[in-house]
Amino acid sequence: MHTIFTAGESLVGAGGGPSTMTTESSRPAHHHAPVRIGIAGATGFTGQELLRLLARHPGVNIATATSSSAASAARRLPALSHIWDGELTPLDVDALIRDTDLVFLALPDSAAAELAPRLVESGVKVIDLSGAFRLRDEESRARWYPETHAMPPGLVYGLTEHFRDDVQSARMVANPGCYPTASLLALRPLIKSGLLLTGTDIIIDAKSGVSGAGKTPSERTHFSEVHGSMSAYGVLGHRHGVEIEQGLGKEVTFTPHLVPLDRGILATIYARVAPGTPDAAIAEVLHEAYDRDTFVRLVGGALPQINHVAHTNFCDIGWKVNAAGRLILVSVIDNLLKGASGQAVQNMNVMIGAAETTALL
Amino acid sequence: MHTIFTAGESLVGAGGGPSTMTTESSRPAHHHAPVRIGIAGATGFTGQELLRLLARHPGVNIATATSSSAASAARRLPALSHIWDGELTPLDVDALIRDTDLVFLALPDSAAAELAPRLVESGVKVIDLSGAFRLRDEESRARWYPETHAMPPGLVYGLTEHFRDDVQSARMVANPGCYPTASLLALRPLIKSGLLLTGTDIIIDAKSGVSGAGKTPSERTHFSEVHGSMSAYGVLGHRHGVEIEQGLGKEVTFTPHLVPLDRGILATIYARVAPGTPDAAIAEVLHEAYDRDTFVRLVGGALPQINHVAHTNFCDIGWKVNAAGRLILVSVIDNLLKGASGQAVQNMNVMIGAAETTALL
Amino acid sequence: MHTIFTAGESLVGAGGGPSTMTTESSRPAHHHAPVRIGIAGATGFTGQELLRLLARHPGVNIATATSSSAASAARRLPALSHIWDGELTPLDVDALIRDTDLVFLALPDSAAAELAPRLVESGVKVIDLSGAFRLRDEESRARWYPETHAMPPGLVYGLTEHFRDDVQSARMVANPGCYPTASLLALRPLIKSGLLLTGTDIIIDAKSGVSGAGKTPSERTHFSEVHGSMSAYGVLGHRHGVEIEQGLGKEVTFTPHLVPLDRGILATIYARVAPGTPDAAIAEVLHEAYDRDTFVRLVGGALPQINHVAHTNFCDIGWKVNAAGRLILVSVIDNLLKGASGQAVQNMNVMIGAAETTALL
Amino acid sequence: MHTIFTAGESLVGAGGGPSTMTTESSRPAHHHAPVRIGIAGATGFTGQELLRLLARHPGVNIATATSSSAASAARRLPALSHIWDGELTPLDVDALIRDTDLVFLALPDSAAAELAPRLVESGVKVIDLSGAFRLRDEESRARWYPETHAMPPGLVYGLTEHFRDDVQSARMVANPGCYPTASLLALRPLIKSGLLLTGTDIIIDAKSGVSGAGKTPSERTHFSEVHGSMSAYGVLGHRHGVEIEQGLGKEVTFTPHLVPLDRGILATIYARVAPGTPDAAIAEVLHEAYDRDTFVRLVGGALPQINHVAHTNFCDIGWKVNAAGRLILVSVIDNLLKGASGQAVQNMNVMIGAAETTALL
Repeated sequence: MHTIFTAGESLVGAGGGPSTMTTESSRPAHHHAPVRIGIAGATGFTGQELLRLLARHPGVNIATATSSSAASAARRLPALSHIWDGELTPLDVDALIRDTDLVFLALPDSAAAELAPRLVESGVKVIDLSGAFRLRDEESRARWYPETHAMPPGLVYGLTEHFRDDVQSARMVANPGCYPTASLLALRPLIKSGLLLTGTDIIIDAKSGVSGAGKTPSERTHFSEVHGSMSAYGVLGHRHGVEIEQGLGKEVTFTPHLVPLDRGILATIYARVAPGTPDAAIAEVLHEAYDRDTFVRLVGGALPQINHVAHTNFCDIGWKVNAAGRLILVSVIDNLLKGASGQAVQNMNVMIGAAETTALL
Repeated sequence: MHTIFTAGESLVGAGGGPSTMTTESSRPAHHHAPVRIGIAGATGFTGQELLRLLARHPGVNIATATSSSAASAARRLPALSHIWDGELTPLDVDALIRDTDLVFLALPDSAAAELAPRLVESGVKVIDLSGAFRLRDEESRARWYPETHAMPPGLVYGLTEHFRDDVQSARMVANPGCYPTASLLALRPLIKSGLLLTGTDIIIDAKSGVSGAGKTPSERTHFSEVHGSMSAYGVLGHRHGVEIEQGLGKEVTFTPHLVPLDRGILATIYARVAPGTPDAAIAEVLHEAYDRDTFVRLVGGALPQINHVAHTNFCDIGWKVNAAGRLILVSVIDNLLKGASGQAVQNMNVMIGAAETTALL
Repeated sequence: MHTIFTAGESLVGAGGGPSTMTTESSRPAHHHAPVRIGIAGATGFTGQELLRLLARHPGVNIATATSSSAASAARRLPALSHIWDGELTPLDVDALIRDTDLVFLALPDSAAAELAPRLVESGVKVIDLSGAFRLRDEESRARWYPETHAMPPGLVYGLTEHFRDDVQSARMVANPGCYPTASLLALRPLIKSGLLLTGTDIIIDAKSGVSGAGKTPSERTHFSEVHGSMSAYGVLGHRHGVEIEQGLGKEVTFTPHLVPLDRGILATIYARVAPGTPDAAIAEVLHEAYDRDTFVRLVGGALPQINHVAHTNFCDIGWKVNAAGRLILVSVIDNLLKGASGQAVQNMNVMIGAAETTALL
Repeated sequence: MHTIFTAGESLVGAGGGPSTMTTESSRPAHHHAPVRIGIAGATGFTGQELLRLLARHPGVNIATATSSSAASAARRLPALSHIWDGELTPLDVDALIRDTDLVFLALPDSAAAELAPRLVESGVKVIDLSGAFRLRDEESRARWYPETHAMPPGLVYGLTEHFRDDVQSARMVANPGCYPTASLLALRPLIKSGLLLTGTDIIIDAKSGVSGAGKTPSERTHFSEVHGSMSAYGVLGHRHGVEIEQGLGKEVTFTPHLVPLDRGILATIYARVAPGTPDAAIAEVLHEAYDRDTFVRLVGGALPQINHVAHTNFCDIGWKVNAAGRLILVSVIDNLLKGASGQAVQNMNVMIGAAETTALL
């Protein structure tokens, strides 16, 4: 095993520890070699975002970027020209193990399910953007991710703001789903605080841009089908609902919708607190949870909107509560950044000891 | 009063009565003079839709179309050229009373509040697309529509499929709001049937295109603010919530959202039935309610989407229920047609005894 | 042969002849049986528009609507429910010949190339929306439509406003392409008038919505590829350029672009007239050409825009000329209506002797 | 005058001189104080982009950001929270002169016309994003920018790739318009090379997203007017045409269009070269011009598209030529970045001696 991550040491400058405000700009560490990065599945939406982010990261070096098909490996990525002009290569596990310290998996669930354990066993750190390793419960996993057979050791669920300490020492990170990221960041502090009434419904009505459906063309992602339209899908049976329930320890009703925009998720969350609970009580819990975090912005009654977070790693959270205790939270993220590649890089920063915001502001 | 609407008589052919399947195409009645129509506020979004629909209606004649400003009255409506090439005139109440049998009010609430009683008193039928006369409860009205001082006699809430008999003999119709139309058509039959559990929350998470915000430019309707974005508004305090509660006789939580499309509303509705209630029970209630109606289409588990109803007068309703009794209904309409001008013409058809679908298919 | 179309006779009421203002609403002819219509390829974008238009046409009866795949034949078209609730059937040439008087081909070029001659030979009238029969020049056709082997007799290029007389007696109509319709309607009168300078370039910079690319999913029509983007394609080699040149008898430079909207084409056309040619001279030529036509609207210097013609059969044409003789024409249509199914129905109306605007206003 | 910019010296690290490939990441200069920056008009679209870019620039310090109205000065910019959390202040010329070394003017033309000379006279460097100082010809300026009365000394037209040397020593930069940037980058090298035939027409058909129209709400920028639509404007009389002609020394026909996207310009340019000119000759000229520039990417026959440059400072240029010498160039930029704030920061980098790509990759 490459023993590149030892306790108490960080590769690139001082670490952005769990409780450290991390807005300072990155400081390249000239005394350390850059961390060697692999990206498996570099031509999908999240793979390209990883390339874009990591190309400007002073503490890493993109050693390998793979593409499944020879065809797409041959052509360049025109949007990234002059940003990252490396070559795409076919996936080669031995090469990944030999040439990289940390690999991002931006692959279909089944491919990630197979590849991740081999990499982790070989001492390569893994950040997996697929869903294959997000569910701990074996039964749930068997239902929603049947292609996942083994859970690697040292696996951490990478909701950075909530599991930063664990991520720091993880051998592998299961990067959260986009809907769960938006939902859990809003709900977890309130659940933990005990403010939310137990025994009442939590409903998450979530709306996502089309990039969340991935790059493969289908009738559902045809421009003419989406433009000027909107629809619910996966009603009463979407695996992100299970992931959210795992993160909350509580049942929820989760309904995703497809909306005519490219990037962004808005989750409208309905919960209940005790009648008479003041807005300030909600605010206090959330500010306590996030005031030291750069990437969560609390906007209160000035409800958040997607265009304020698109193309960023921010999660903006607003809320309103009435006298009867009806609480509505609205949480927005860019599904490809905070909901995928951005949070993955944020996790990487924690893992390699870089300032948490490096390459993300 | 012009006694043009007498019981048992219809102006244009046989009436499409409450329980009549109304898909037959319209039959112009050569033995009756066309109904003389006024449109007050013809240049807004709903006013132009009224012109477009009524111009092809064989049983009516657009006698007057008004515009508030001399400037806009001077210019033509380019989109309607060769469809309706009449002249826009300033609003003149006496002329409306003299020259029309039925007036559509597509005006701001305050203007409608003032104008409607005068027209009704003079024997002119009125279909009001504003919100001024939708709330029966005085206290609610005082809060949400303080400009409304008197409620004219013979006033009916024009949710056509539910109040067709009343509409037929109404002197004035308050045309329902767009959100209430989508919400009430889905929920009313289930509430009336007793299937919905009393004492549980009903949550309506509704998403609307921008035309619902009207034609006046504002920061909120600027293309760059809406495109690629989405936001909730009026959270825990939108007057359409009150209108929905009036229509249901039950409290709801109603949250509207602005989405980046022009026309269309999708309402996702969360309710509860007794655990174990089969899907067929839901279906039976809804089919019983709507199988004789042309403009409500039940799609069941094949959830509806906005592009199937855009530019039409249809309301499509789908639903899913799980074993625990969680029921999710999805209802979609074109906010300018079934949510405004289309339903207004549908109401007019009922009032004048035309086939209900005339000019609407 | 079914001798259903004889000279001097029309099937449904008085004909909308070439020089007749055709805005009167349609008059169903009770003394004639409705024309039996077949639609081959009813589930694509243009096929569905044909169904929508013809379902409300009082003079025809949709006898057959075919779908290539058993799968799609099985399912219904949800957007057309309650408008047209007929059954989709697999394509059966014998049945088409037996059961229909006139068939619309909304098929790929190769399928239309094979089917059309058989239908015409059997006496069935054909309106072909594919490109297979649009080019008269054999060499051009061999290059751009190699699947077309024989040109049926009685074939007419169906740019209605320009070839109405020929269409009236045609056995088959090649319905013009979307780009050629927008371009030729603007340019033909000016070319014929001699106003355009010979020997100078004509450049057509055309922008189309995505529905013009058809319903088959591809990377190019993926929402995320189109939204927030724009691109040129087919530069210096698009077959619609050849079709336009055929219609003008003159070379042009034609560049199509894909824009992030669903329906609509805007063609910006650059030409030259003699320096000093007044705007009124341009206007006179165009008004002379179109003042008796319902579906061409001349807007002059108030340049046209796509939203005024979307979901209609109109072509709006505007223009500006400067003292140096630089003339810019802007022409807009709905690519699925005036650029395809709408003009096809317009041609059908001419062929069957219905008022030209029937089912189109 | 603050003598902060002396010949041969650069403020922050080694300069990215005119012929230097500038992709290396920025190196903050610890031995220099950061350049003090003012942004006049920080709440408009370009002002906010300036804040976003400069907040991550290691060599500058945003000393002042002004807003015209007290109201907007009071509220924060939610999209920039945690990126730039400074205060907006009313415009105060004395404070600008006292506290800043370099001021970006993101103001209306008239405000910039008044303010710029005062700042330059006081020794403050100015980069003006308005149009007030772009035209050198007095007559043209009097027609298109009558509010501009005096042209400050040391004024340079800041098309960076073409006037880098001049920008380096400029006291003030007139930042090019968005359309001229896209057009001139494609055409200037070909004009200078003599490849383009003199005496033939150059036509620029340009399409812009709505952010180019600015933040002030109007009927023209209302979402419902733009979505699903497209239109030409300023036909045969747009001031950016004059600016392009100045940059080329040649007449052009320039037609801008508004398209339903937020950010991005695509210019389709029609010119002529001698018949038989090979594609390689075009390519050679353009590669010679731009191979040392990071922000111009030549894509040749793989035509460029807006989504590859949106949210970046790149200009992508593609082209096709046929045997007859018809040349079509397609040039795309993000109108707010390379077409405004990005190029402004690029110019600033040149002026202060920072690597040209600092804060822009």
